[in-house]
Formats: sequence, structure tokens, C-alpha cells
Amino acid sequence: MGEWGVIAALTGRMPAGPLTSVGIGDDAAVIGAPSGSVVAAVDLLLEGRHFRRDWSSAYDIGVKAAARSLADIAAMGAVNTALLVALAVPGALAASWPLELADGLAAEAARAGAGIAGGDTARADSVLLSVTALGDLAGRRPVLRSGALPGDVIAVAGPLGRSAAGLALLSAGLADGRPAPEGLAGLITAHRRPSPPYQAGPEAATLGATAMIDVSDGLLADLGHIADASAVALDIDGSSLVTAGPLGEAAAFLRSRKFDSSRTDPAGSPPPTALEWVLTGGEDHSLVATFPAATQLPSRWRVIGHVRAPDDNGPGVTVDGAPHAGPPGWQHFR
Amino acid sequence: MGEWGVIAALTGRMPAGPLTSVGIGDDAAVIGAPSGSVVAAVDLLLEGRHFRRDWSSAYDIGVKAAARSLADIAAMGAVNTALLVALAVPGALAASWPLELADGLAAEAARAGAGIAGGDTARADSVLLSVTALGDLAGRRPVLRSGALPGDVIAVAGPLGRSAAGLALLSAGLADGRPAPEGLAGLITAHRRPSPPYQAGPEAATLGATAMIDVSDGLLADLGHIADASAVALDIDGSSLVTAGPLGEAAAFLRSRKFDSSRTDPAGSPPPTALEWVLTGGEDHSLVATFPAATQLPSRWRVIGHVRAPDDNGPGVTVDGAPHAGPPGWQHFR
Repeated sequence: MGEWGVIAALTGRMPAGPLTSVGIGDDAAVIGAPSGSVVAAVDLLLEGRHFRRDWSSAYDIGVKAAARSLADIAAMGAVNTALLVALAVPGALAASWPLELADGLAAEAARAGAGIAGGDTARADSVLLSVTALGDLAGRRPVLRSGALPGDVIAVAGPLGRSAAGLALLSAGLADGRPAPEGLAGLITAHRRPSPPYQAGPEAATLGATAMIDVSDGLLADLGHIADASAVALDIDGSSLVTAGPLGEAAAFLRSRKFDSSRTDPAGSPPPTALEWVLTGGEDHSLVATFPAATQLPSRWRVIGHVRAPDDNGPGVTVDGAPHAGPPGWQHFR
Repeated sequence: MGEWGVIAALTGRMPAGPLTSVGIGDDAAVIGAPSGSVVAAVDLLLEGRHFRRDWSSAYDIGVKAAARSLADIAAMGAVNTALLVALAVPGALAASWPLELADGLAAEAARAGAGIAGGDTARADSVLLSVTALGDLAGRRPVLRSGALPGDVIAVAGPLGRSAAGLALLSAGLADGRPAPEGLAGLITAHRRPSPPYQAGPEAATLGATAMIDVSDGLLADLGHIADASAVALDIDGSSLVTAGPLGEAAAFLRSRKFDSSRTDPAGSPPPTALEWVLTGGEDHSLVATFPAATQLPSRWRVIGHVRAPDDNGPGVTVDGAPHAGPPGWQHFR
């Protein structure tokens, strides 16, 4: 299969979304923007930095690449309409690999109501993807990072820390072929195929969210962006965070080191804790937003804290009133 | 300068366009799409394949990366509104390099009436860029590859073969520091910084162009896309092609081999000719379109051939009635 054959096969795997009138195959795509503006974001995913081919299948990587960009659109309060995908792969890679990647991209785009409208391909020494997501606000105002107000509540839709826990399990040598303790396999899946709650984004906008962001770098880091942009102090109620269940089990399992010790983290790494994953783990792509305190929130939004006027320390994020000690955010792979 | 410092500096160098209400710095950008749809294209540029850092400055590469995507939007008959840029660079690269790249991106975007609305950055072993261009049709119908009709004329706006001639000169060892024969330096510049006639795209749409494409892979290859999509035969009038002037001088210069022979092409390469550059040279990003024969074309559109019904050989491209012998299209670097 030459370059054109691969492109034709890829195109067949990636249907355009309902608003796309011109899809892959011309100089550019044409996608409806009914509200007269388009919401757009791009993310780059590089092998070895954002994913590993021995830890994730091509399908997984497609899902993850799509989710990363789709979540950015949802975090503005917009509905996803289309993805454009630039992909480079090594020449030695099996032809099935990009096709399975395409399946993952298409499946996740469809979950968000979108399709694949355009792309570009090239050869490279390692796999790299750039995914551009487009969306429509349907008349809503975009929910920025800068609108949080003292008195608002902080609420989150979607899980926290699950992707980081899954990565910790993979880093500890717990991959396919080894029996994962019951409940922990779901964390590995969460790392490989994040599942952002896209519909919660437009929902939050309609409910009057004052600020919103998707949790890609970790809760503390991403709330830090809202704190800075809004010039407010954000305080998280530690008791509201879910650290029991699979996260706690995974942390206990890793501390017990009942696995191949030759693949553990370098000596000196602190033992993992569920709270650390929840506060600093990235790539769940859940949505965190601020709302006026009187907002009646649907059940998928869990209140986790409050917005205050900044004190003498300026804007920032605290947990139960105190700064969190530890690394500030997500580092992908070291 | 850490990652955030670089991003802040980059952002300062890349202003948003007039239609962008939310630019770099939030989860996604918001860009006006006044006609209710958005035209979008993405292109990937990889060091070693699409550019070489020893042959092009960071500014040049920024211009080229922007031009490549901006031209796709123009080729649909749309006006460019915004670029989103994903960029990865090696950690060892001087901090000034991405900033100069940003200057090139911004300058070329501005030439097309657009700005930089969003981006993403990462580290990689070599430089890679993905540029997504967005545009607006202002109520015009998009000009596709599929609308050419027998009886139409083929016309081109912008130069042909100049980028390929410049690349041939660079490949032959003629780079900065060596005196270039008068007239040839402009060809090297054309390779480093293509200058597509963006305004000719919407102009062609308004004039009633039936099909259009930008010349990124070479005239024959790109007309071949129109021939296939429109199911027509395209015949180029060889006498209409400009091969005199700098292109002819460059070919004569290279044949004379009055330069460092240690850096010439491998033995066996055919001697370059101006006609070959015009027919198969890529990356000028000029626009080639088909128009009804009665169309009054502005002077920047030069008629170079005619559209016919396909004969027994099916859709395709001929020169003076005969298939062109030689490589079909542009191969970037070998």
C-alpha cells in the first residue's frame, strides 16, 4: 500500500461528522459553524512522550489523541463538530497500525458527536499525531478560564486520578499478560483510553458556569490556570475527593510491590498515594468548572471546593486551606 | 526560559487575526465564521523531509509552514481567518529559534489577512510543525477539485517551478556565502519562502472557477487530482509555460557545473531543465483553476491549457496532447 492507498484506507475508516459538507479529499474541509463562530484547539502527541506503543494499542492511541482535543472544545462549552488529523508513522510499521489508530480516532470522535474532516500524512522515525478539534457554541458564550468569582463553587464532572494510577501500574510492570488485581484493570484502561464527559461541557455553559477547563495537566495545575486567569483563590475540600475504591487499592498494591521489581520506578520515588493521583494526575480530561453557589447542579457534577477572593498570597489553589506540598503537575513520562 | 516562558514569548510574537475573539491562552480559540461554515486544512512539516535547518532559517520555515496551509484555504475560494500551530523542537535549540519561526508564521499569516489563534508545544528530537488553517467563504460556494468541465480553460495564478529550481540550486551546494549568479538568488528565496497569491483564490471563486487546487505537489500531479475528481482530460499548452528568464538561467548554470562538485546530485540524475521544474516542481503554492471559456480573467491568471472530455485513456493530464515522460510529481527531499 503506497501513501495514497493508506490515505484511501484511512479515509474509509474515518467518516465525516453530520455538519461536514466537504470532507477528506479536497484542499480543505468545509464544516458547518451554525452559530457564526468556530471553537478550535490543537494538540500534539508524540511517541515516547505522550504514549508508548508497547503500553497502548494503535486503537488506544487514536482514542487518546482524539479525546485530548475533543475535551478542549467541551471545556469551552461547545459541541464538537470535526477533527483534522495530521499523522506521521515509521515506514516499517505494519499497515494495520494506522488503520487501527483511525478506528480509535473515529470511535472517540463519534462519541463526541463529531467526525474526521481532514488530515495529512507523512513518514517519520516515530509516531506523531497532531489533532485539531473544531466545535460550535450553538449561541452560548464561551466559558473561559477567567470568569471565576469569589463565592462560586468548584465542581468536577468525570473521574480524577484514574489515568495517573493506570500509568503507575503500567510503569510498575503490570501490563497485558500479567493478571491484574480485580478492579485495577479499569485504571489501566482509563490511562489508555480516557473517556471525557463531553456533554457536560455544553451543559455547564447552559447552567451558567463562570469558568471551565479540562483536567489534562492535573487538578491542581489546571485549577491554577483558572486561579491565575480569574485572579481568585480556589480552595479544594479534601474530604470531597474520591480516594477509596480502585485508586486506594492500586496505591496499596504498588506499595506492596507484589510485581516484577526489575521494572519499578527509580529508587527514591515517593510511594504513590491515591490523593496524589487525584490532585496531580493528568490526562483524565474530566471537566472542572466554577458555578454561582445557587446553581442546581446535575448529579454528574460533584462539588469539590469554593472560590474565594485572593488573600495576601495572591491567586492560587489550596487544599483545605493550605498549599499542597509536592510536584505541581503532570509530567507525562519522565 | 521554561515551557511557559517560551509559550508566553511565542504568543507575544503571533497576534490573533481580526475575527478571533478568544486567542491563545484558553482551552480553545474562538474565531468568527461569518458565513456559517468554516474551511479547514492541516499540514505537517517535518525537519529533514519538508525543510532543512541548514538551508532555511527559522523565519523561512515559519513562512513556508504557514504558506502551505494558508494556500489550501485560498484554493477553496475562501479567505484565511486563523492558524493553529503545533510545534515541537529539540531542547538544545536556541530559544531564539522558535521565536524567529513565530515571526515567520505571523508575517505570512498577516499577508493572508489572518493571525495565530492557538497552538501546542512539545519537545522532540527534531523540529516538527503542524499548521491548521481556518477560513471563511463569505457566502461563496467552495471551489472543489471535482467541478472542471470540458470546454473550460485552465489558468494559473502565481509562479511555477521557482521553488524546485531554488531547491536544485541549494542541493547543488549553492547556499549563503557563495555568490549566486544574478537572478538565481530569487529562486532560492522562492524555495525558502513561498509566496502564494492568496487573494487570487476568492477572486477565482467570484469569477466562477469550476475547479481549483494549489500547486503543492507539482503542476502535473495537482492537475491530475482535478482530472481524476472531475473525470476530465486536461491538456497543457507547452508554449504557454514560462521557462525563459531565471529558470532557464538556473538550468544552464547547473548544467555548466560551475560550483562545488562534491555536493552535486548522485550520478545518474538527469540534467535539470526549466520545463521539468515548471511541470513537476512542488511547493510554489500557486493556484491553478479551471474557468468557463468565456470568463474575463484578470491579468494575474494566465491561461495554460484546456479541459476536454476524456478519451479512451480516461481522465488524465497531457502536455500538447501527449503524456509527459518523467517522474510524476514532487518528492521533497530524497
